[in-house]
Formats: sequence, C-alpha cells, structure tokens
Amino acid sequence: MGSAARELGKAGLSVTLIDRCNHHLFQPLLYQVATAALSATDIAEPIRKILWRLPSVQVLLADVVDLDLASSSVILREGGAIHYDNLVIATGATHGYFGHQEWASYAPGLKTLVDARSIREQILLAFERAERVLETAEQERLMTFAIVGGGPTGVELSGSIAELARFTLARDFRNIRPSAAKIMLIEAGPRLLPAFSPRASNFAETRLRRLGVDVELNTAVQDIGPDWLLIGDRHVKVGSTFWAAGVAASPVARLLGTEIDKVGRVFVENDLKVRGFDNVFALGDVANFAGSDGKPLPGLAQVAKQQGRHLGRSLARHLRQGEPLEPFRYRGRGNTAIVGRHAAVFEQGRFRLIGWPAWFAWAIIHVYLLVGFQHRMQVSLQWLWRYLTYERGARLISHELHEPKSFNDN
Amino acid sequence: MGSAARELGKAGLSVTLIDRCNHHLFQPLLYQVATAALSATDIAEPIRKILWRLPSVQVLLADVVDLDLASSSVILREGGAIHYDNLVIATGATHGYFGHQEWASYAPGLKTLVDARSIREQILLAFERAERVLETAEQERLMTFAIVGGGPTGVELSGSIAELARFTLARDFRNIRPSAAKIMLIEAGPRLLPAFSPRASNFAETRLRRLGVDVELNTAVQDIGPDWLLIGDRHVKVGSTFWAAGVAASPVARLLGTEIDKVGRVFVENDLKVRGFDNVFALGDVANFAGSDGKPLPGLAQVAKQQGRHLGRSLARHLRQGEPLEPFRYRGRGNTAIVGRHAAVFEQGRFRLIGWPAWFAWAIIHVYLLVGFQHRMQVSLQWLWRYLTYERGARLISHELHEPKSFNDN
Repeated sequence: MGSAARELGKAGLSVTLIDRCNHHLFQPLLYQVATAALSATDIAEPIRKILWRLPSVQVLLADVVDLDLASSSVILREGGAIHYDNLVIATGATHGYFGHQEWASYAPGLKTLVDARSIREQILLAFERAERVLETAEQERLMTFAIVGGGPTGVELSGSIAELARFTLARDFRNIRPSAAKIMLIEAGPRLLPAFSPRASNFAETRLRRLGVDVELNTAVQDIGPDWLLIGDRHVKVGSTFWAAGVAASPVARLLGTEIDKVGRVFVENDLKVRGFDNVFALGDVANFAGSDGKPLPGLAQVAKQQGRHLGRSLARHLRQGEPLEPFRYRGRGNTAIVGRHAAVFEQGRFRLIGWPAWFAWAIIHVYLLVGFQHRMQVSLQWLWRYLTYERGARLISHELHEPKSFNDN
Repeated sequence: MGSAARELGKAGLSVTLIDRCNHHLFQPLLYQVATAALSATDIAEPIRKILWRLPSVQVLLADVVDLDLASSSVILREGGAIHYDNLVIATGATHGYFGHQEWASYAPGLKTLVDARSIREQILLAFERAERVLETAEQERLMTFAIVGGGPTGVELSGSIAELARFTLARDFRNIRPSAAKIMLIEAGPRLLPAFSPRASNFAETRLRRLGVDVELNTAVQDIGPDWLLIGDRHVKVGSTFWAAGVAASPVARLLGTEIDKVGRVFVENDLKVRGFDNVFALGDVANFAGSDGKPLPGLAQVAKQQGRHLGRSLARHLRQGEPLEPFRYRGRGNTAIVGRHAAVFEQGRFRLIGWPAWFAWAIIHVYLLVGFQHRMQVSLQWLWRYLTYERGARLISHELHEPKSFNDN
C-alpha cells in the first residue's frame, strides 16, 4: 500500500492513504518480535516518515467500516467519508480459523505488532508462572506450547520458541528447567512446508526435531479450549496455543459486494482492477490474481510490494498521459523459511539452497530489505551481537501484573 | 532492589526477589520513551538476565498484596506466601495526586514502561486525530498539551514534546502544523526546578520558552477533567494532560502498619532498618532516611541504588560474620535536569554546570550507567543518529485502532 501511494505521489497525484496502523510492518521478521529476539521498533517504520517528502500524499490513521460505491466514498469509523476517483484496496489478511472463530481467543495468530507483543508476553509469562507454581503437572502444562500449522510461520515460531527455551532462558530459573519445555508443531498434512520441495520439508523436520520440537504430521486439530487441544482423539493439556494454520482476506474486500474466493479475496484482472469495476483496484492478500500457472499468487510480502509499485506506476501513467493500464507480471524472488538459528530453506523454481548458506543469504537480503538505513545498521548489529551471545534484549513483559490501566485505552 | 539482591547473592545467601515487573528500568530516560526518542527495550533489562549468575537468588514475578508479620511471610496475589528471615522493602513510588485520585485517569504520570508507552501513544494519536478532524477549534484543543509540575520530569517532558512537535513531526502532516502545538508547563511555585539554584531555574525557563513552551508559574491546578483544566479561575480546553507534580510511596510500605510520613514513606534508622523492627528494612522511595542536613533524602535513582548496595553488603556481613549493621551515608552525585536537546543543568553542592556542557556530561554518564554493554553500544549509536537527523524511530502506535484484544489480557 505504501508502494502504490509512493509511486502515485511521485507523479504528483493527490493520494489519501488510510490505514489503521501508523506504521509499515516488515512481516517476515514478526516472529522474531514474538520470540523476544527483536523489538517492535526494529521491524516497523512510521508511515508518515516514509511518505513525508511527497506533498500530494496525505496519511489518515483511521478505520474503514464501509464503502459507498454509489457516491464513490470510503466511510470511516471515526466519522466522515473520503471521496475517491480511484480506489486501491490493499488491506491485507487476518487469521482464518476455518469457521471456528471461537478458537481465536485461545490460539492467537501472528499478523500485527500487537499479536507479536502479546505472543511474546504469553510465552514469557508461561515460564514465570511455572516458576511460581509448585505442582509438577501444572508446571508441565504451562511449559507446553502448541503451534498449529506447519507452514513457514509455524516452522519459524516453533524453532524460535525452542531456542528461547533451550538457550536464552536456560539458566534463568530455579524451580523449572526451561529447556524441558514441550513444543508441539501440529500439521494436518503429510509434511511441513507444503509449498516447498519434499527435500526442504525433510530438512525442516529433522532440524526442528534436533531442537527438541515434537513435529506431529497428519494430525488434525479437532477443537481448541483455553488450556487444551483435541488432536485426533487425544486430549492434550497445553499452556499456550498459537495459530499459524490459515489466513483470511481482510473484511474490507467483502464490502465491494462482488464475488470472493474461499479465503475472502476479490478476483482482479491482470491490471489489478477488481473484476466488474472501472476504478477499484486490489492487491496483496485481498486480491486473487491468477499467476502464470493459472493458480492464484501466494500471500507473500514480495507479491504485495511488487503489485503496489506496479499499480502505482501504471495508474500514474494512465491518469497523467492517458496510457492504458499495464498488465502485472510477478517476478518470484523465491521462498524462504527459517528453521532455527543459522538454518533455512530457500527455493526459487528449481534452484534450492538448504541449511546454513540459505540462512546466511536470507539474513543479508532481509536486513537490507528493511525500510530505513538506521534500522539496517542497528538490526545488523543486534543480530551479530545476539548471534554471538544468545542474548535476547527484547525479553520484556511490558505490563505490570494487575496494572489497572489497559494499554489500549487512550 | 536488584542491587541489594545481587550483593546478598554474591555472599551466597538465599534470596527471593519478588517483583511485579520482569525488568529493571532505567528511570532517568523514561521520558525519552514517552516522547518516542527511545524504545522500551533501550532502557530496560530483564531482571533474570541481571541475576542469573547467582544461583542462590530466585526471582518471582508476582504482586505483593499483604504482609503477615506474625508468621514473617509475604502474601502474593497469585496465591501462596513466602516466608522470610529478613525482609527488604524497595517497592518505589507511584504518582501522588494530593488526594484527588479521580485526576489519575485524566492526567497520567510517568513511572513505568506502560506509562511511557501510553503517554507516547496519547501524544502521537493527538496529532493523528487533529489531522482527521476538520474543525479548527477541535484541532487546537487536540494539539494542546498540559504538563502539571515544574520539577525535572515536567521540564524534560515539556521540552521533549515541544521538540517532537517542532522538529520531528513538523512536516509529516497536511491539515495541521504540528509546530503550532501549544505546550503548557504549569508550576504552582514561583520557579521551575525548585530543588536547583535560581540560576538553573532561570536557564530552564528561558530555554523552554525559546522552544515554544508556555511556562506558567505561581499557577495552581484547581481541577482536572477529561478535556479541560481549571487553572486559577481559568477554564482551559486541553487535548492531553500529564502529571509530574507529586509522588507517593508504594502502598506496600503501609502494610507494615507503622508510622508513615506525608508521602507514605516509613521511617528508617541509619542502617536502613525500619524503625521499630528487627528484621525489616526499607530503601529508596519507600524509605524516609534522614540525610546529613536532617531532611529526608530525595527520591532519586542514585539514592535507591546506593542504599541497595550498602544494605546488601552490610546485611551479608551481619548474617555471615555476625558483624553489626553499618550506617548508610549518601554520596550525592549531583542533580541533573534536561532542558530540550543539548541543554541541561547539573548541580552538586556549589558546583554548577549549565547549558551544553551539562548536557554532554549527562549524556556520557547516563549512557554508561545503563545496565548492559549491548544497550550502551546501541543507545549511543541511536543517540548519535537521532541527534544528527532529528529522527525518532520509536514513533509507533502499537495498537491498531479498535483492536478488540486488550494488550493486557494474557
């Protein structure tokens, strides 16, 4: 969304960017915030800071609750409506619980900074509670972490929690051994990382098992409760459950009243125009864009970013010079999943990199993809330092216990 | 508190450290977190990380709700009681509203990381709302910030908000001019920084006025509402009010049932033993310790830290070798207040440093007082970078608007 706005703004076109967050988030490192390796500010940049040089771009921190297509306007929860000549919807995705919305409160997912901080606090508080509690069974329950879904997020989260328990927190406690924590990664399908090759799946499974993660394949979660999981016919006591199994497009797409696919995305033409509309576009996780193989493009940050830049440029030329909109073509930059410290899998078409070299390539590329020079410099330094020391500086629980004031109340 | 536990732990004595927070906070830089110049993790260190090398020290994240003096035990809200042979109370201070507890929700103070983050979000959201609102009067109200109390915290907070508005955010918005924000610093007494010399007070006042802060002296706040202040007989519309006027000792001190002073501190002997007790000690902001001039020592981090280290050592020798407890003597390391970018006042007895040299000395000393090498390195780099660029990386609003999930609910 930032990319489209920037390109349009560069062409001097008048843009209003409406976002519920005041920051642009670097999603691929979110699991590191959730597991206390990085701070929120390391992976987020204020949107205004990215766009302030473009005088024709206005940023509004607001929540879209409705679209009035008849009058071409966007209705804000805060009151007021914003008229548009052209509308770009790039509101991303949220967690999808396959119709079990009641699971959401027991098995939070990882999409936003709030998610990441709340997962971090849940993990750290589980160990703090286990240290206080004296019954062994309850200590074991608190130190059982279930991650549902064996895609990249599930693999990264379980590997990172395992390292937190085995290395970072190992000697911090007196009544418990954090390294005895049980980390379960539950995948309904026959292998981890289904979007990768079987070799990559095997590698991830082997590495995670070596880190002490219980990888459970062909295992469907039947039900989720506050402190238990029903897996097949087993009833398992858990301390925390995290959701990495499904996504659903942001509900804003549905406001168009047009056809959506089974994860809630609207269908877009090859120029990113929403099917059946003249001046409404969609991109990223809310858009079902048919790739060269006929299948919809995957929900990756690189897809959204390329689409945003393409649409911004193409639309600017269309509006300025009357040129026709150009078709978007996705240039896959490969898929990566991180499997614990210094191990990863990377695949682009037939090219594969597995193990330490993949991790190293990923680290270099991702640090340099982060927005802003300061972040690059700092994140590099932090990584280097933490890589050498196993230290996690972001290991803070920000609320005091029983703090009466809610964090969200201002 | 960490200091006392560390000294006792070094002597191999068995220590249970009970804290509501899992981190040690570097208070003097808290206002920088509140004004988005530093991240929470920059000024906080996990307590377990500080103490993990001492096997006889156990840390419990828990909240003390009562003391059972008859059975020598501390009652935890989470359930259970901890028996003690010797009890050290170092629970610090909270905001004091001079009997007007109803002001607390309208005029938050700055003592914890939660406070700092919540003040930061309130400041940033005020500008975001003003950008969205179209009525000039409402924009002016939202961009009016009142700070009550002209001590070091009030001076630092008002100077830092002024800089945020005048420099960092200056060009980020389209409908408002952040540099037109009105920042009021309200002090009941005749001068700012009453604990310093009149020359320092004058310097602070001049500098703040130059930054555009409205300094109102001899002005008592009569009443505080959600969006207004009653000052003398003036009714002023404000967007945000922050409290820097008074502190009160933590309520844990009152659980001893012994005499307390007017801010709720217990009186301690010169060996830090609470008057009338044999095995209960108090230090820092909960202890009224008569200084060499007969007046109680001020509520400064350096007082608490020196007392903690002294008590830990003295008590260890007492318990190990049967030596008598030694009297504590405070070595004042001087008082500092920061007045905006690169200006400060520093006073130790008759020695005074005012302006840029004081700021420079302060910056060097404080960065190196921060716990942990990594933080030193990073905070130095961040400061250098931000000093050169006026950038504030921590300018994030972490909650999404209308996020249904509370930050504190795990």
